[in-house]
Amino acid sequence: MEKKNLTYLANLREAMKQHNVDVCIITGTDPHQSEIPPHHWRGREWLTGFESSNGTNGTAVVTADDALVWTDSRYFLQAEEQLQGTGFRMMKEDGPEAVDLVDWVTEHTSKGQTVGIDGMTFSISFAQRLQQELADNGVNLNTDFPQFDYIYPDRPERPKNKLFVHDEHIVGETVDSKVTRIIEAVKSELANAVLLSALDDIAWATNVRTSGDITYSPIFVSYLYLSEDGTRVLFVDADKLTPAVQKHLDQYHIQVRPYDDVLKFVASLPKTTRLLIDPEKTSRGLYDHIGCTPVFGGSAVARLKSIKNATMLANLATAMEKDGVALTRFFMMVEKEYPTGKLTEVELGKRLRALRLADDSCVDESFAAIIGWNGHGAIVHYEATPETDVPITGQGLLLVDSGGQYIYGTTDITRTIALGGATPEQRHDFTLVMKGHIALARAIFPEGTRGAQLDALARQFLWHEGKAYYHGTGHGVGFFINCHEGPQNIRLNENPTPLQPGMITSNEPGLYLTDRYGIRCENLIVTEPCMKTEFGQFYDFKTMTLFPFDLSLFDLSIMTDDEIAWVNNYHSMVRSRLTPLLTPEEAAWMEAKTAPLVRK
Amino acid sequence: MEKKNLTYLANLREAMKQHNVDVCIITGTDPHQSEIPPHHWRGREWLTGFESSNGTNGTAVVTADDALVWTDSRYFLQAEEQLQGTGFRMMKEDGPEAVDLVDWVTEHTSKGQTVGIDGMTFSISFAQRLQQELADNGVNLNTDFPQFDYIYPDRPERPKNKLFVHDEHIVGETVDSKVTRIIEAVKSELANAVLLSALDDIAWATNVRTSGDITYSPIFVSYLYLSEDGTRVLFVDADKLTPAVQKHLDQYHIQVRPYDDVLKFVASLPKTTRLLIDPEKTSRGLYDHIGCTPVFGGSAVARLKSIKNATMLANLATAMEKDGVALTRFFMMVEKEYPTGKLTEVELGKRLRALRLADDSCVDESFAAIIGWNGHGAIVHYEATPETDVPITGQGLLLVDSGGQYIYGTTDITRTIALGGATPEQRHDFTLVMKGHIALARAIFPEGTRGAQLDALARQFLWHEGKAYYHGTGHGVGFFINCHEGPQNIRLNENPTPLQPGMITSNEPGLYLTDRYGIRCENLIVTEPCMKTEFGQFYDFKTMTLFPFDLSLFDLSIMTDDEIAWVNNYHSMVRSRLTPLLTPEEAAWMEAKTAPLVRK
Repeated sequence: MEKKNLTYLANLREAMKQHNVDVCIITGTDPHQSEIPPHHWRGREWLTGFESSNGTNGTAVVTADDALVWTDSRYFLQAEEQLQGTGFRMMKEDGPEAVDLVDWVTEHTSKGQTVGIDGMTFSISFAQRLQQELADNGVNLNTDFPQFDYIYPDRPERPKNKLFVHDEHIVGETVDSKVTRIIEAVKSELANAVLLSALDDIAWATNVRTSGDITYSPIFVSYLYLSEDGTRVLFVDADKLTPAVQKHLDQYHIQVRPYDDVLKFVASLPKTTRLLIDPEKTSRGLYDHIGCTPVFGGSAVARLKSIKNATMLANLATAMEKDGVALTRFFMMVEKEYPTGKLTEVELGKRLRALRLADDSCVDESFAAIIGWNGHGAIVHYEATPETDVPITGQGLLLVDSGGQYIYGTTDITRTIALGGATPEQRHDFTLVMKGHIALARAIFPEGTRGAQLDALARQFLWHEGKAYYHGTGHGVGFFINCHEGPQNIRLNENPTPLQPGMITSNEPGLYLTDRYGIRCENLIVTEPCMKTEFGQFYDFKTMTLFPFDLSLFDLSIMTDDEIAWVNNYHSMVRSRLTPLLTPEEAAWMEAKTAPLVRK
Repeated sequence: MEKKNLTYLANLREAMKQHNVDVCIITGTDPHQSEIPPHHWRGREWLTGFESSNGTNGTAVVTADDALVWTDSRYFLQAEEQLQGTGFRMMKEDGPEAVDLVDWVTEHTSKGQTVGIDGMTFSISFAQRLQQELADNGVNLNTDFPQFDYIYPDRPERPKNKLFVHDEHIVGETVDSKVTRIIEAVKSELANAVLLSALDDIAWATNVRTSGDITYSPIFVSYLYLSEDGTRVLFVDADKLTPAVQKHLDQYHIQVRPYDDVLKFVASLPKTTRLLIDPEKTSRGLYDHIGCTPVFGGSAVARLKSIKNATMLANLATAMEKDGVALTRFFMMVEKEYPTGKLTEVELGKRLRALRLADDSCVDESFAAIIGWNGHGAIVHYEATPETDVPITGQGLLLVDSGGQYIYGTTDITRTIALGGATPEQRHDFTLVMKGHIALARAIFPEGTRGAQLDALARQFLWHEGKAYYHGTGHGVGFFINCHEGPQNIRLNENPTPLQPGMITSNEPGLYLTDRYGIRCENLIVTEPCMKTEFGQFYDFKTMTLFPFDLSLFDLSIMTDDEIAWVNNYHSMVRSRLTPLLTPEEAAWMEAKTAPLVRK
């Protein structure tokens, strides 16, 4: 790795000299601002040697005599290690020693100098901020410095995975209906056409998916143009098409043009086209080519996509059953093999993946499973690797956060179980987390309520004892698309989006004791109408996920009757839904795992 | 009233003709953007005949042949009534039939026309928005159309109340210390001087008060200029000064100049003066005179003022005791005289005011007391008048929301009591409100938490039954200044200000059943440090208010043991703090009113 990286770095500096670029900035993302970009665009990784699990958690800056990578606190240790001998040094994006990248670049350039970027991998917003701060100091920004072309002779190709149609019977809405609703949203922004860059938006709009373009998400590399005048153009590499997909696209009058044509296309649009683009999701490179009138606005799709219809919810129930069966087999296996002392985190990851993928409708995991034993469970974004792997032995807590991409919907579940018996402290902490989980699951709230208003319901019991977790309580979840999607969430931070019926959000409070153990209890919940009174419309949450919580970890002495009843009702539902799908042995296990909690 | 008003309106139209003003807009506020302006500035009331309790809830627009008043839904009925025969018609500021005032003016003016305003009674922000929208249509804004001068021959004088010093032993901080901290805040905004327009900011900074300038608030009409170079100038009418106040101002090197000199003064400041002004609180008229460099920023005082020091909190405890004694006498009287059937809402208001003001340290009530019997209690901003007054007879709930301006601090308390026995439904609803009150009072939360995050704790039990209140749960409270102050609050809406130790906020959930009854339970709570753990610094609330809740309204069957314990502990504290200040008869009453709640 070292040698290769040093060659790339030398190539880059040579290209910078030739193109009069004094400082080059390289992001870790693609022209679609994907969180996990295909390898084709992982230039920052090859250049620096620092590989984060999803690729985007690092931005490199190269000058004639310096080379740096910015990353966030989750990756400080890993980056320090991987950057040794690469010529790069690490900079901190957050924490007390944080340095702002744009500030750093501004301070290290002088009047008349030029900063070069590949505009295709920068959002309009980010490039705009950079350009403004540089301009204030008389520094130029060259947005057409495609470093990929100059320095990676062995650059991987764009993904060539075949597309497939996501059946209308599963998604419950035709492409025509979706496009009509998108065009309405476009018109409400006073635009008459839209160019979608975000791959999840395109997959949703077209009812088309693939497997492999983007790790853990069945979305595909493309652009989609939709106009009020009926024009629909999908820009996608032709070798990804199948006859079935071609027929589907034909049926909905979606023309197909080569992926690379999008730049020429937007350049040729007449001034009368008022093209809606999302400055957070659209690349500066594409923006530089636009010949028509751009209209900046939020995603025309995000809100539509976040609200799942009844067909999707019914299918998600099926996905949850399949997931519950896979998890039943997994946790039965863990309990059975734990005494051998031979299970490890990495091994469990492999087994869990295999159990999920055993179902034909499961295309992939929905993210890199987090399987953390004791201290590793306390690392919020832990990913077991051969270097960090530990055997599951002795007493402790095992945290398993995982999910599947089923064609019937995306799942995301975390369970924390005790092995070798639970300590009173572990039971106390687990129960505090569950009390928060239950408070959110049982919440009823008026129309217009935002996630940030409900967030404290899940934290209150921990806070009462001076305990806390600092990640979000809930993120939006896609339907056989991204496992993380907006616009709603349930977090400490304000988010103006109200929770609306049909939105799927996670409910995942936790607690992390450094080097000791981590606890997280996560189900997916869907917002639904609950009652209408003289005080207005009220909503509640329906829990979709189907798998029991570890009975041995509940401390009933700190639970209310309502909380105990919630657990018992939930477990009773899990049992009745999963039992018909289980073998007799598994059903007996499930029976035991869902026995009612009873006060002594 | 009618005749006078019609004369004013004729005068105004004549002045508009003479000054080439096509449309005139008249606000209800003063040059300090006061919520309750002195009568000197209540031009909108005299002009229109529509008098709202605090003066600011209406804005008038006059054209050559039309005259309108905008007000909010709380005043629709009253305004409709009062505006009859005045030549004015009502426009709605909120609700489904709302019309935006600026939009209306824009639509009713054409290119080349002129809108005239008295810039002294418009904030910079409001005038700015108005000017921009008018300019887009080629309409001019004349910000120097002081309609007061033209149309009110009988205009009341500016208030002449004498000032007094708010003792340093009570406020616990010298003026020097406060000014030093203000200048630090000014410098952090990259300014080197500040002009304070908000009267509560000035009262806080100078430790000076008065009585009568502004109803219900001991603040005084003035401006205060503070500079990094040590210059301190108070602009105030000379006849308000006393030798003691003059000596106090001399001691702190505060020059006094006539109130009207402020315009000349800001005009004469050199360009090197970077003058911090708050565009929400500073008038456009003053801004138009500024000769130096203006720097727009938030109030340099608001955050400092919101955090009360230990001396203030100790004194507020004294104010709370005095308030508790007055309320004891009040509610004992209510119970005793209720059977006569002769008590009315207006009568109770008079009695309560007299009982509070019987204490020398109580300068005024802190707002117009809300005393609502049954259906009137369900009107959130009800103010009993001879026209609306009802006798307190039969069975029902009495809601009493009131407070005092003690030199030891400002109080604000709401109690709801049952008279003639409580119904099960009333007890159920009251207990739901109290469960929310208790949940907020008992909350523990990490540093950085905002009020909007805790707000749902107070609403959750109501929401669970499809019930809700739509006012804020808590507002900031001043210390012998305004009863409502920022920057923090506890509301449905997002407010980025975190709750910090020393901030006093109200805790006032409620429930309002139209035409039936209203319930509100309000104490003042102060944020204080609670514990520091490996998860950070945690805060909690200490309840400051001292008066029992009505024991007959608790439904123990829906309360947890913790909630019952909270009520019993609170009542025990109330009893021990107030009893030493009561007569034996009163002490016996208090003993009964604070008896422990016990499950049957």
